[in-house]
Amino acid sequence: MMQTLADIGEDELIRQFVRGLKQDASVIAGPGDDCAVVQGSREALVLKTDTVVEGVHFTEATPARLIGRKAMARVISDFAAMAATPRHALITFIAPPHIPVKRALEVYAGLRSMAESFGINIVGGETSRGNQLILTVSMTGTAPNHQWISRNQARVGDDLYVTGRLGGSIQGKHLKFTPRMAEAHWLAKNLKVHAMMDISDGLAQDLPRLANACGLGFEVDLAALPRTPGCTPQQAWGDGEDYELLLAISPKTSAQKLETWKKTFPKLKLTRIGHLVEKQDAPLAPSGGWQHFRS
Amino acid sequence: MMQTLADIGEDELIRQFVRGLKQDASVIAGPGDDCAVVQGSREALVLKTDTVVEGVHFTEATPARLIGRKAMARVISDFAAMAATPRHALITFIAPPHIPVKRALEVYAGLRSMAESFGINIVGGETSRGNQLILTVSMTGTAPNHQWISRNQARVGDDLYVTGRLGGSIQGKHLKFTPRMAEAHWLAKNLKVHAMMDISDGLAQDLPRLANACGLGFEVDLAALPRTPGCTPQQAWGDGEDYELLLAISPKTSAQKLETWKKTFPKLKLTRIGHLVEKQDAPLAPSGGWQHFRS
Repeated sequence: MMQTLADIGEDELIRQFVRGLKQDASVIAGPGDDCAVVQGSREALVLKTDTVVEGVHFTEATPARLIGRKAMARVISDFAAMAATPRHALITFIAPPHIPVKRALEVYAGLRSMAESFGINIVGGETSRGNQLILTVSMTGTAPNHQWISRNQARVGDDLYVTGRLGGSIQGKHLKFTPRMAEAHWLAKNLKVHAMMDISDGLAQDLPRLANACGLGFEVDLAALPRTPGCTPQQAWGDGEDYELLLAISPKTSAQKLETWKKTFPKLKLTRIGHLVEKQDAPLAPSGGWQHFRS
Repeated sequence: MMQTLADIGEDELIRQFVRGLKQDASVIAGPGDDCAVVQGSREALVLKTDTVVEGVHFTEATPARLIGRKAMARVISDFAAMAATPRHALITFIAPPHIPVKRALEVYAGLRSMAESFGINIVGGETSRGNQLILTVSMTGTAPNHQWISRNQARVGDDLYVTGRLGGSIQGKHLKFTPRMAEAHWLAKNLKVHAMMDISDGLAQDLPRLANACGLGFEVDLAALPRTPGCTPQQAWGDGEDYELLLAISPKTSAQKLETWKKTFPKLKLTRIGHLVEKQDAPLAPSGGWQHFRS
């Protein structure tokens, strides 16, 4: 008989979750106390929490490792979007009692493996029962003071770029994307990036958010959007969960610097899709994208 | 007609959540970007996440403000249990789309009000739809290096104490408790506290956890447990969600220091309930308490 969470209970589940967890020297007290304790740093402290919910971000049929992978990768993608560095994670694991222990451990293995790839310490968390599987990852990290990139400092005339290809992520990319961490840090260091964010709800939702945060409008050439093979421009515009970077770059950025991108990341496109304009000069944008509660 | 989350959508809900949010000078970038950014500190960084789930920690009939209050107070209680200071919180709000906007805002008001009482900045969060209302609060805070109190440093012969009265919290205390923050900091400063934790799953679960963490056993006099009026010793032992402090104190702590407690916190009992012994000398303890997935 397949063991379920109801068979082993909360304490034993946590013991199995944290067995052999890798942690670096910054961890003073990991899982097992009321709180975790890690070493502080005078650098700016960067904080993010993000959630994946069964039936919304994955289904009962989704391979367990990919659920954990996605939960962790989404948060890492947000750190990338600020050119910050994630360091310490807390995991909230909510599941129905009838879930097989094996599936729970595979979910956690996906979390652990993605965390290890990016040098992130899992230092604690929380478990509870609920009607559906829900993972929340809360992360702290650092950014050299004032060297992180927000989404609200873009200016009129800035060029808009995206990494990679957009659209059709439901075919698999939403579970298997690699956060653009190295790319984001390279961009922040080498180009005049005024604003950056990751595209999680679709360009149709996220680009207006970036423009609004800057008090600006935008012009985008839908035909110029880099598309996942088989996708229409409308899908590249409206589909969610691309987890690519959207950037506003000074138009003074030299063509030579943009050429260097191609040599550094030969497999990942960096495509100009439009530019920022005064709000009143913005054309009406086509609708699309993902909103929670509405969809 | 009552407005629901489905009517206003995610962006408008977040706008209403964060309107007029109070933040101190440590917040560099609050809600609205990929991550929040706050000032770092060389002090030890303390991290905790905790969740309340509809049907587990509250019901559909629970007044909305008390749900938010409880979600925030539970995490604050964990910081108290380490004599640490909570500073910055991220809120994950999961709810079915049919929930009235008014109820969602009242839940959030409960979170905000409890956070403000303890000088905590809400700096960001996440919303998603789900089958039931779930709140996760992730908190960062500080502790002067090596001045925080873990649950695993108690020694044989240490006296065990609890604050307040135990049992029957389902009558209302589980929604209305005030985290023992001032008391915890006073105890850490004035008594020789070797280990401390908050009692969230009932003494029957939590005391063995503390003793195990120290590699020790315990002897408790059930009749000595301070009881909520109307509760049996078995309820004081087994009921969950007291959110009182459980402490292991050096037996060398002077009676005079313990007398000072009474003058400082005249309304809150501090009761000796037993002591720690070698593991092999521990009597069999009665069972009880709360375990997720099993109950």
